[in-house]
Amino acid sequence: MDKILILKGNIIFTRTADRFEVYQDSYIVSVDGKVEGIYKVLPEKYINCTVDDYGGRLIIPGFVDLHLHAAQFLQCGIGMTKQLLEWLNDYTFNLEKEFQNVEFAKEVYTKFADKLVANGTLRACIFASSSTKGTEVLFEILKEKGIGAYIGKVNMDRNAPDFMIETTEESIKGTEYLIEKYKDEKLVKPIITPRFAPTSTDELLEKLGELAKKYVLPVQSHLSENIDEINWVRELYPDSNHYSDVYNKHLLFGQTPTVMAHAIYLEKDEIELVKRNSVTLVHCPDSNINVRSGIMPLRKYLNIGLSIGLGSDIAGGHKIALNEAIVRTIQLSKLLSMDQPEYEPLSVSESFYLGTKGGGTFFGKTGSFEEGYFFDALVIEDNSIIADRYGLEDRLERFLYVGDDRNICARYVEGNKLK
Amino acid sequence: MDKILILKGNIIFTRTADRFEVYQDSYIVSVDGKVEGIYKVLPEKYINCTVDDYGGRLIIPGFVDLHLHAAQFLQCGIGMTKQLLEWLNDYTFNLEKEFQNVEFAKEVYTKFADKLVANGTLRACIFASSSTKGTEVLFEILKEKGIGAYIGKVNMDRNAPDFMIETTEESIKGTEYLIEKYKDEKLVKPIITPRFAPTSTDELLEKLGELAKKYVLPVQSHLSENIDEINWVRELYPDSNHYSDVYNKHLLFGQTPTVMAHAIYLEKDEIELVKRNSVTLVHCPDSNINVRSGIMPLRKYLNIGLSIGLGSDIAGGHKIALNEAIVRTIQLSKLLSMDQPEYEPLSVSESFYLGTKGGGTFFGKTGSFEEGYFFDALVIEDNSIIADRYGLEDRLERFLYVGDDRNICARYVEGNKLK
Repeated sequence: MDKILILKGNIIFTRTADRFEVYQDSYIVSVDGKVEGIYKVLPEKYINCTVDDYGGRLIIPGFVDLHLHAAQFLQCGIGMTKQLLEWLNDYTFNLEKEFQNVEFAKEVYTKFADKLVANGTLRACIFASSSTKGTEVLFEILKEKGIGAYIGKVNMDRNAPDFMIETTEESIKGTEYLIEKYKDEKLVKPIITPRFAPTSTDELLEKLGELAKKYVLPVQSHLSENIDEINWVRELYPDSNHYSDVYNKHLLFGQTPTVMAHAIYLEKDEIELVKRNSVTLVHCPDSNINVRSGIMPLRKYLNIGLSIGLGSDIAGGHKIALNEAIVRTIQLSKLLSMDQPEYEPLSVSESFYLGTKGGGTFFGKTGSFEEGYFFDALVIEDNSIIADRYGLEDRLERFLYVGDDRNICARYVEGNKLK
Repeated sequence: MDKILILKGNIIFTRTADRFEVYQDSYIVSVDGKVEGIYKVLPEKYINCTVDDYGGRLIIPGFVDLHLHAAQFLQCGIGMTKQLLEWLNDYTFNLEKEFQNVEFAKEVYTKFADKLVANGTLRACIFASSSTKGTEVLFEILKEKGIGAYIGKVNMDRNAPDFMIETTEESIKGTEYLIEKYKDEKLVKPIITPRFAPTSTDELLEKLGELAKKYVLPVQSHLSENIDEINWVRELYPDSNHYSDVYNKHLLFGQTPTVMAHAIYLEKDEIELVKRNSVTLVHCPDSNINVRSGIMPLRKYLNIGLSIGLGSDIAGGHKIALNEAIVRTIQLSKLLSMDQPEYEPLSVSESFYLGTKGGGTFFGKTGSFEEGYFFDALVIEDNSIIADRYGLEDRLERFLYVGDDRNICARYVEGNKLK
C-alpha cells in the first residue's frame, strides 16, 4: 500500500532561482516519500487521509549542505585568525586525529548530527576524518538520524603530519571497506574523498579514481581555495595544466558526479572543464572570509551556467546552520557588486535556491516540492506578530536572516518525520 | 553598608584592544556596583561573603550596542534587497508610525527588550520612533529590565512621509517632555536624536542643539552612510562644508558627548573634526552590507585614534546579538585587508574591545573589569567537551562565533543580577 503523508500550511519553494513558488494555506501530498502534488482544496481521493495541519506556519524544502567537515565540528569558531594552511597544521589535524578513538568519535559525531539536523540540514556531503573506524561511526549515527548524506573517509598519503597519514594501501583498503559496507544504503552513502590534491600522491588519486569508476560512486574534494594552495599544487603536479586537471586526469572530476568546494580562482580553461564535465561547485561564504581565501565569483559562474550549491564548510565556516550560508551568500554578493556593478547581488530566491534545489540536485530530485521530488521538508514557526503583519516571502526572508533551530518545529526526509 | 558581590570563574576582558586580560579560576569582587578587584585567592576581608561560584564558566563584560532602532525590531531580516533610502520609504516608516499606538509599542518593545537582554547587551544607544508616547513606553520597559541605555525619541520635521513628520514645535516639545521625565534616572536616560540631517530643518537642529546644551545631554545620529544620502545632504545644506559640519554648526557634534553611526565616507576634514571634537563613531558591519552602503574603513580610523564602538543597527543589521557584530567586524576587516594589505584584519581581542570597552566608554566606566568600572557582566556556559579541550581565549572566540543567548547563563548590571 502507498504511504501517504499530507501536510497543510503555507508552502514555499523554488523551481527556478528567479522566484519563489508560493502556495498559501495549501495541502502538500507525499506518496511513498515523493511529492505527488500541492492543492488548495484536497482531492477527493485523499479525503479520508490524516492531515498534519501546521496552520499558518511555513513549509519549505530541507536545506542541503554540499560541503562540511564533521570531524572539525568542535573547532567551529576557533583559530579564526589563521589562514588556510596554517589553520590546518595548527588546529585541524590535531583534532581530526582523535577520531581514531571510536568513543570520542561517537560522542562528537552525535553532537554534530544533532546540531546539523536541528538546524534543518536534511542532505549533506560530509568529510569525516582519515580514520576508517571513526568514519564508520559517523555512518551509523547518520543512518540512525534518518537524513540523507554522502560521507567520505578522508584520503591522505602525503604532506600532512605523520599521525594523520596512511599508506596508499591502507587508505584505499579502508575506503573500500566502507564502500562495501554502505554502498547499498538508501539514505547514507559513501563518496570518494581525497582531502585535496596536495595531500595525495598520484598513485592514491589513481586508485581513488578506479574505485569511483568500479562502484560508480560520487567524488568530493577541495579545489582552488587559496593562492598559496594553488601554487603548491602547481609545484607538486608540474605536468598538469591546472588544479582541475590533476583531478580530471585521475577520473575524479565529473567522470562520476563530482562536487568541488570553493573554486575561487579558476582559470578560464578550468571553468570550461567544470562546465563540460558537469562538476558541481560549492560556495562556502563564511569560510571564504574566515580563512581569508577570497570570495568565489558566484554571479559570474551562475551566468556561465555552472551547477552550484552552498556549503557551511564547518569549521572553516563557523555556522552549521545553512540559512546562515544563504544569508552570507547574499551579503558577499552585495559586497562584490559594489566593486563590480556588472554583477548583480543575489536575490533571496536565488540564494535560497542554491541552498535547497541547487545543492539538492546532487542527491537526485531533492530540494524542491515539484512533482516527483523527494519530500524533504522543514516546518517553520515564527511569532504571531510577524505572521500577522508580513507576507509569506517576507516571513521566509526573516527566518533565513534571524531564525535558528528553535524556529524549526518539524523535519521530514522522504516523507518520514524525523524524531 | 556596602553592597558586595563576589563571582568566581574564568574572567576575561580587555584593558587595551591588543590583548585579553585572562584570570583563570579567580574571584571578581564588586562593591556598590563597581569592580573592586580580581583575586586568585579571596582576601581575608571577604572571607565571610557569599560567592556565586560559576565553576569553569567564563565571566566577561556585558556587550555594548552603540546603535540600534528599537522600532525596527520586527523588521529584522525583512526587505534586505533594498538600499537605504528605498528601504526607509518602503518598509521602515510604515512600521515606525505604529508606535504611536501605545499598546503596540508595549507589545513590541517588550519583545525587543527581552531579546536584547537575552543576547547580553547591557548598555545601548537606542533610537525609538518619533512618537513621544511610544518612546515613553520604551523608557519604562528598559527601566524595568535594569539595563543601561540612552533612549532617543526620533526627531524629524521634513522629508519623510506626512504620517511620520511632526512640526518643529511638536518634535521639540515631545523631546523636552521626555528629558524632564527621565533626566535624573540612573540607568535609562534621554539622548538627543535627530534622525539624520536630511529629515531635519535647520531650525529643528538648532533647537535640538540648544536642548543638548541646556540639559547637558548626549547626542546620537547617522552620518555619511551612503553616497546618495551624502549627495542629498550637500543639496539640502549647500552652505555647510560637509555632512559633519551640518551637525557641528548646531552644537550636535561633540559639544556634548556624541555618537554617530556609520561614518563610512568621511572626508579628511571631517575625520579631523571627529577627532578634535571626540565624537564616537559606530561601526555597524551587517548593516553596512545589507543595505549596500559600503564598509567603514575601520582600521584606518583606529590608526588615526578615533573613538569607536559597535552597533547591531537593527534593522539595517539583522542580528540583535552583539557577538554577531563582533564577528562580522572581524570578517569585514579581513575582506578589506585582501584589497588593502596595509590594513591588518582585526584580531579577536580588538573586535571584542570595540563591542565592550570601546562602546562602553560612552557610558562612562563600563565595558571592562578594571578597578572602578561598573560591574556589568555576562556568565558564559559552553559544553564540557569544549571546556576540557580548549583554552579560555579559544572558548571565548568560539562563543563569539557560534554562541547565542542559550550560552549566557547570568547577566549583571552595576552589580545587580538581572532576572
